[in-house]
Amino acid sequence: MKVVKNEIRINTKGEIDIVDITRMVEDIVRDSGIKNGVATIFIPGATGAITTIEFEPNLIQDFKDILEKLVPKTGHYRHPINGHSHLRASILGPSLSVPIVGGTLTLGTWQQIVFVELDVRPRSRRLIVQVIGE
Amino acid sequence: MKVVKNEIRINTKGEIDIVDITRMVEDIVRDSGIKNGVATIFIPGATGAITTIEFEPNLIQDFKDILEKLVPKTGHYRHPINGHSHLRASILGPSLSVPIVGGTLTLGTWQQIVFVELDVRPRSRRLIVQVIGE
Amino acid sequence: MKVVKNEIRINTKGEIDIVDITRMVEDIVRDSGIKNGVATIFIPGATGAITTIEFEPNLIQDFKDILEKLVPKTGHYRHPINGHSHLRASILGPSLSVPIVGGTLTLGTWQQIVFVELDVRPRSRRLIVQVIGE
Repeated sequence: MKVVKNEIRINTKGEIDIVDITRMVEDIVRDSGIKNGVATIFIPGATGAITTIEFEPNLIQDFKDILEKLVPKTGHYRHPINGHSHLRASILGPSLSVPIVGGTLTLGTWQQIVFVELDVRPRSRRLIVQVIGE
Repeated sequence: MKVVKNEIRINTKGEIDIVDITRMVEDIVRDSGIKNGVATIFIPGATGAITTIEFEPNLIQDFKDILEKLVPKTGHYRHPINGHSHLRASILGPSLSVPIVGGTLTLGTWQQIVFVELDVRPRSRRLIVQVIGE
Repeated sequence: MKVVKNEIRINTKGEIDIVDITRMVEDIVRDSGIKNGVATIFIPGATGAITTIEFEPNLIQDFKDILEKLVPKTGHYRHPINGHSHLRASILGPSLSVPIVGGTLTLGTWQQIVFVELDVRPRSRRLIVQVIGE
């Protein structure tokens, strides 16, 4: 059993940028040498989120639209400028845990891991990938 | 410390089917022999989700209703047929981590682990349960 | 590698009380002696949730408002009294996993871990913090 920590660094395009990070997480898992365990992907920051989605352009646009419908950018928020970014992030969540079996992530065929940039401006993001297992 | 991987196989009834998998996860934890650790339950697939809820029929219906209110099936989505299924799944999330203490899950008395089938048709589902601990 | 279990006990003020538990989780991580790993924070109970947010008073009020907008207390629910509490909890989720690197949580500067009391009355809450690592 061991813990292997790694990072993903990406530059996002601002609101709303949805970045497929599956390949980067898979590379980290392979490099860790861990065959069975769990990968925890975490965004240190309160205006981004991690989830999974089928990374298909139409659906990605639908996802942006539903976030706008549920937590409108034009709503009235006490927190200035990017209140809606924070709320969207807190609802989606900053963390994702994916099992590793036989050295690979147990994702579905049409399921990708994405970082969701919710802040109103482009950001340089550092994501933590913590791999625990044997 | 060790990692024990297991699977849950269920057949769902289509949209929206909420399946109580608590007993199955508990059985896997007991069989693993792990007394203290964490169980990660994961759906490989982008149209299902894992969460907890009090598994009471009225509340289960309320949960279906709120998903329909937040992400209506009849909305306009670019992704054909099951766009709303995908969006609901990405918001709820594919993963759940539950601590194990003294050989049992630390669930509340009125808190069950559920798989939420969001796809528009019955599916044969395989869930991953990864148990890490000692 | 080891597992260290601990608990946080708080008394909440009822609906909606958002409690910053970051310091308490940090203390548990430090006391565990674990330098690299993952902390899993879990609420045993179906009317509370764990997430992260910038703990700023205006934003905390915005978060309460958006929960009320998305799942109104005054809506029609079959589950009596606190149906909306349950639904909000199931959507936000009962669990959070945060990596530990160099003995500290990898949170962003303006990102706090919060327990969200969604039940309609003050509650005495016990949260589980499971720390796994080396």
